[in-house]
Amino acid sequence: MALSKTSLRHLPDLNDLDAATLEGLVDRACALAGGAPPQVIEQSVVNLFFEPSTRTRVSFELAAQRLGMTVVNIELERSSATKGESLEDTVATLAAMGIGHLVIRHPETGLPRRLMPVLPAGLRLLNAGDGTGEHPSQALLDAAPLRSNGLDFHHARVAIVGDIRHSRVARSSARLFSRLGVADIRLAGPAGWLPDDLDLPGAALFDDLERAIDQADVIMMLRVQKERMSPDDWPDQASYHRQWGLTAERLAGAAENCRVMHPGPINRGVEIADSVADGPQSLILDQVRLGVYARMALFEWLAES
Amino acid sequence: MALSKTSLRHLPDLNDLDAATLEGLVDRACALAGGAPPQVIEQSVVNLFFEPSTRTRVSFELAAQRLGMTVVNIELERSSATKGESLEDTVATLAAMGIGHLVIRHPETGLPRRLMPVLPAGLRLLNAGDGTGEHPSQALLDAAPLRSNGLDFHHARVAIVGDIRHSRVARSSARLFSRLGVADIRLAGPAGWLPDDLDLPGAALFDDLERAIDQADVIMMLRVQKERMSPDDWPDQASYHRQWGLTAERLAGAAENCRVMHPGPINRGVEIADSVADGPQSLILDQVRLGVYARMALFEWLAES
Amino acid sequence: MALSKTSLRHLPDLNDLDAATLEGLVDRACALAGGAPPQVIEQSVVNLFFEPSTRTRVSFELAAQRLGMTVVNIELERSSATKGESLEDTVATLAAMGIGHLVIRHPETGLPRRLMPVLPAGLRLLNAGDGTGEHPSQALLDAAPLRSNGLDFHHARVAIVGDIRHSRVARSSARLFSRLGVADIRLAGPAGWLPDDLDLPGAALFDDLERAIDQADVIMMLRVQKERMSPDDWPDQASYHRQWGLTAERLAGAAENCRVMHPGPINRGVEIADSVADGPQSLILDQVRLGVYARMALFEWLAES
Repeated sequence: MALSKTSLRHLPDLNDLDAATLEGLVDRACALAGGAPPQVIEQSVVNLFFEPSTRTRVSFELAAQRLGMTVVNIELERSSATKGESLEDTVATLAAMGIGHLVIRHPETGLPRRLMPVLPAGLRLLNAGDGTGEHPSQALLDAAPLRSNGLDFHHARVAIVGDIRHSRVARSSARLFSRLGVADIRLAGPAGWLPDDLDLPGAALFDDLERAIDQADVIMMLRVQKERMSPDDWPDQASYHRQWGLTAERLAGAAENCRVMHPGPINRGVEIADSVADGPQSLILDQVRLGVYARMALFEWLAES
Repeated sequence: MALSKTSLRHLPDLNDLDAATLEGLVDRACALAGGAPPQVIEQSVVNLFFEPSTRTRVSFELAAQRLGMTVVNIELERSSATKGESLEDTVATLAAMGIGHLVIRHPETGLPRRLMPVLPAGLRLLNAGDGTGEHPSQALLDAAPLRSNGLDFHHARVAIVGDIRHSRVARSSARLFSRLGVADIRLAGPAGWLPDDLDLPGAALFDDLERAIDQADVIMMLRVQKERMSPDDWPDQASYHRQWGLTAERLAGAAENCRVMHPGPINRGVEIADSVADGPQSLILDQVRLGVYARMALFEWLAES
Repeated sequence: MALSKTSLRHLPDLNDLDAATLEGLVDRACALAGGAPPQVIEQSVVNLFFEPSTRTRVSFELAAQRLGMTVVNIELERSSATKGESLEDTVATLAAMGIGHLVIRHPETGLPRRLMPVLPAGLRLLNAGDGTGEHPSQALLDAAPLRSNGLDFHHARVAIVGDIRHSRVARSSARLFSRLGVADIRLAGPAGWLPDDLDLPGAALFDDLERAIDQADVIMMLRVQKERMSPDDWPDQASYHRQWGLTAERLAGAAENCRVMHPGPINRGVEIADSVADGPQSLILDQVRLGVYARMALFEWLAES
């Protein structure tokens, strides 16, 4: 029996996926990284980016190419989408052209989930970041190197540090860590950067870096958006670094072998010291490396539908 | 015997093709859409766009990829063509690099045909829109869904509505319809948007929407270029819509089962009402879908030479 | 035994390659142009361009595609590299994504060689032009058509004319010609455009075009950067052409069958007359044609490591 059109999978976020599926995706990313042969998917992918992000676009592009998919890139600034066409019509047009997967990045929070009910038949949607909303492939690539590094999620203490309030990375990753069994999640940052509400089991807010990372097994430092830095509190980047930067001294207060993560691109000497970013506990490049495999795992999962 | 260099085919427009070739291209597009296996063409395509058009560029890119061709995109704004190199030299350079097909979009009317005598050996040219001139692949993708929809071109009444004067879509499609046997073509639009001269058998001009679409079997609405709207006549888009927009009420005056077309992107509520664009008589997404197959058919035809 | 990571080859310039390797690369480019089957390289290439150059980017892209490589293009203006990330971190990130070859163009002279010590394991670097430094693939594509044209490098007189001082093309090509055995290299140009120092065996400086090309077997005209033209000396392009342009009359003073080259894009009527650029002695399009094969040869050579 043919699959009905409405049985196609989408990935606006990871929230609808059960724990077994989430663990399956993390495991599949690790397996691919370990040399498992990828599937061959004879479909086209369009990367539709309404915000520039070379890093994410290239990672998706490489992932698709390794699965044998053909890729077409569309960036907003030169898109006919700017001719006043609605996003729904742009998406319907791309679907009519026969593409199988649409990777979309958009500054509007919640857009992928709002698009879902009107998604044309035959098109699988994969959110590559929406406003301050979600970034599901980033969450997967945060979890995968921890899994391949042998972290026991159920007994791990995870600190996420920085501008939590505006970070879709923090949001998506914290939720995934929680779903994978992490019971101790510390969200730390300057007062204005902490979320107002927090609906996450086991999560607590900290306004102090040292306390937040005390005995932590994982520290994820977020990128500072410099335009959000308060000139009163931090007249320069060095002053931010003194209060909120992860240094080797501070890292010594975390658990032995604490892993350090960062979604990149990193501001060296601002939220993270060189010695930590380049140190033996850093998983930052593993995140990048597994990011391609995490996206391959997601394409495979979507293509099953 | 090897083909001589000058026997290569080009497609500046559809005017030099005989009726059998035109019908063969339409049929081939429909066959490919129906699942006929595409040829494999081991050549490179360059999309050389001096005007941005995501829709057309992506359609050509997907078409080429499905034929196994490799694609390189060049957009003017960042091109070394802006270093003062002549277009002839740019084209000669691309030909020397060994590409087989050049898809060119350029704001200068008539440029593809003027380029033809100086085209380097080995390079097939495919016009993707020149100024207010021609847009042959668009004409094919307008004809193909009508053919696959069972339209009898020889007895069809076709209305094309909008800014006929400046529209290469109107020009190319009207000519192709005429070549395919349509004997009743109504070109309708506000006075300033009608062509001064018209050398098309069976075509007539209308300055009234209702009369133009009376008993029509096909209505093709053109996109309004908002900068060309006269503020005296239409102070806002709604007032244009009242006079020239295709609504369900107006569509009722056309033939039963009249097909509605639009080259896109559509201005909803301006030249076309939502209920018509999304209604059962709309072929708009079929045009997009068959557009990829029409371009595949064109690449196959060019590659034969 | 597996190759160690540090045994990977890079190509910041041609200076470290011995004469046999250089000749091998030239020969391989000619062989590929003659129909020798290319290798299949199952790796990814990233074209990372911090300066726009359609011509060079497209040539590398086509070369990679013909070797079966997948290509990802990154241009600076829209790159997250502009988010303040260091170039080293950008390169480390791309390496972590598993790409095999990085083709880099950057306005900073000497950058590729400075990057080499910090290049991440697994990444081969290929310089596509750095500031006023080197452009090794251009040098190869200058040598290859001369080789395929039967030039005896050891007895050839080569004149390079124009803005030698600021030209990485002049620098790279002159060095390669010297390494390939050319003992008579004349560098000619207006006084301010000649280099201060010159460490090249057999090279001499000329401030007069006629004398520089006297009995020359090869003349390479450089592109005039119009913003560098002195308005006192040359109030318009025609006056530059009168003094420094290569015309048919002047070419008659060179050796019989002297070959004329130009890296393109050419300024017709400025540094070169139409009749010369398009004449029977011009190898300009052969340079372009062999450029793709020269880059294929370089990718093959890098991939061996």
